[in-house]
Amino acid sequence: MTTQQLIEQIHLKKSFLCIGLDADMTKIPIHLLELEDPIFEFNKAIIDATQDLCVSYKPNTAFYEAHGIKGWQSLQRTINYINDKYPEIFTIADAKRGDIGNTSSMYAKAFFEDLNFDSVTVATYMGKDSVEPFLEFENKFTIMLALTSNEGAFDFQTLQINGSELYKVVLEISKTWKNAENLMYVVGATKAEYFIEVRKIVPDSFLLVPGVGAQGGSLSEVCKYGMNENVGLLVNSSRAIIYASNGTDFTEKARVEALLMQQEMAEILKNSNFL
Amino acid sequence: MTTQQLIEQIHLKKSFLCIGLDADMTKIPIHLLELEDPIFEFNKAIIDATQDLCVSYKPNTAFYEAHGIKGWQSLQRTINYINDKYPEIFTIADAKRGDIGNTSSMYAKAFFEDLNFDSVTVATYMGKDSVEPFLEFENKFTIMLALTSNEGAFDFQTLQINGSELYKVVLEISKTWKNAENLMYVVGATKAEYFIEVRKIVPDSFLLVPGVGAQGGSLSEVCKYGMNENVGLLVNSSRAIIYASNGTDFTEKARVEALLMQQEMAEILKNSNFL
Repeated sequence: MTTQQLIEQIHLKKSFLCIGLDADMTKIPIHLLELEDPIFEFNKAIIDATQDLCVSYKPNTAFYEAHGIKGWQSLQRTINYINDKYPEIFTIADAKRGDIGNTSSMYAKAFFEDLNFDSVTVATYMGKDSVEPFLEFENKFTIMLALTSNEGAFDFQTLQINGSELYKVVLEISKTWKNAENLMYVVGATKAEYFIEVRKIVPDSFLLVPGVGAQGGSLSEVCKYGMNENVGLLVNSSRAIIYASNGTDFTEKARVEALLMQQEMAEILKNSNFL
Repeated sequence: MTTQQLIEQIHLKKSFLCIGLDADMTKIPIHLLELEDPIFEFNKAIIDATQDLCVSYKPNTAFYEAHGIKGWQSLQRTINYINDKYPEIFTIADAKRGDIGNTSSMYAKAFFEDLNFDSVTVATYMGKDSVEPFLEFENKFTIMLALTSNEGAFDFQTLQINGSELYKVVLEISKTWKNAENLMYVVGATKAEYFIEVRKIVPDSFLLVPGVGAQGGSLSEVCKYGMNENVGLLVNSSRAIIYASNGTDFTEKARVEALLMQQEMAEILKNSNFL
């Protein structure tokens, strides 16, 4: 998918919602557990119920790997289902991978070729040659951790380096890498005021924003400081939507929650003169 | 496995060699490709030919994920084979995982419970709550990236922070985390002089050392600066051993290379009065 196609979808759906498909066997409705692949069935139902309200789905690989081969099968089925039935959806493998060059190439192959995701999240600490192998793929996006939504973000990411902070140095340096136009960044909603700083460095990049909903971040604050002229945001919600109910009404309740977010987004887009 | 058992194995085998099982379909002997699971067959042959010369095997998950479900099966078979046949071997899932707390818990479950590895490598950037879920597991080890062996290590890891460097701050802070006694660290052999600094901060920890062999690091330099009173090192070699030949003699040639490393290690241990 191209950036332009993603922007068109945002305008069409009046939404920049990303739904995190973090299917946990201990949280999905009990009646699904007797099916052959409960995680895929859960995802499929959630996707069918919400696909017109969001522009992106983001399975976090941890929730699939925890079930070994069966989990990997669920992941494969999920991405295939989205790619076949809803090819206009921007898919994110939330995998946070990264390694030395030849090894990162294998990860890039796994997520961009074998699984055919549009994008993958990557780790930051190992620097340029751990990220550039991902950037080589045309019309695929590499979403690098800048400022994450967890408490531990303050352990290292905000350390002072010559009057700047590590996450800003990360943003600055990453702009010099080959094919940097294929970069997007993770910036947590729990730190809305930081978006001012982030936008000074990467005004044009898309930002993947976790932390709205269960983690407590504010959508309006994120938009106030983080939007750019192409919207430039994918705001993720996982648990607040997919676990809105664990009964037989889980799809209806998930849709209600997704609709609330989409309507709030449509209102923001309207007030910001995007619509 | 306990640290004490690992130390006993090092003394018994006169070796602190870790062999990286990074099986690449384009590099393994052609005659294996007609088998049902070439990657597992390759690993099994390498393991049987070298298990008395090393104390650890380290499959890098990227090489398995690149083949999707089949790759995950090869990984599962490989770890099961080692655990069943050579339970005295310390196993490392080189996965470099890390995420927000509840997600890191899923990764820990995947590698420590589902696959039953003794240890897993984890990423650094997301801080305390991304690592602590791994540290909760008794007799399992969490090997955190400190100073990696690639060029990109100098992008962020050696940045100056109040007169120190990021990797040193990482080491210092990680010592304050809950169950920090279950931490080991990745320190690249390509930066041998840095081991002096590392040992000032973590004198007692085991260090996993990539970068000897194909990446150019020196074993004697690493040992000179990095050994502690329990040896405290696991020195990894991957490509130099497992791809010593791509013919039908690949196990013999791999054994020759592993033996060279083990003999050099035995000599170092003798000269350092460990034996």
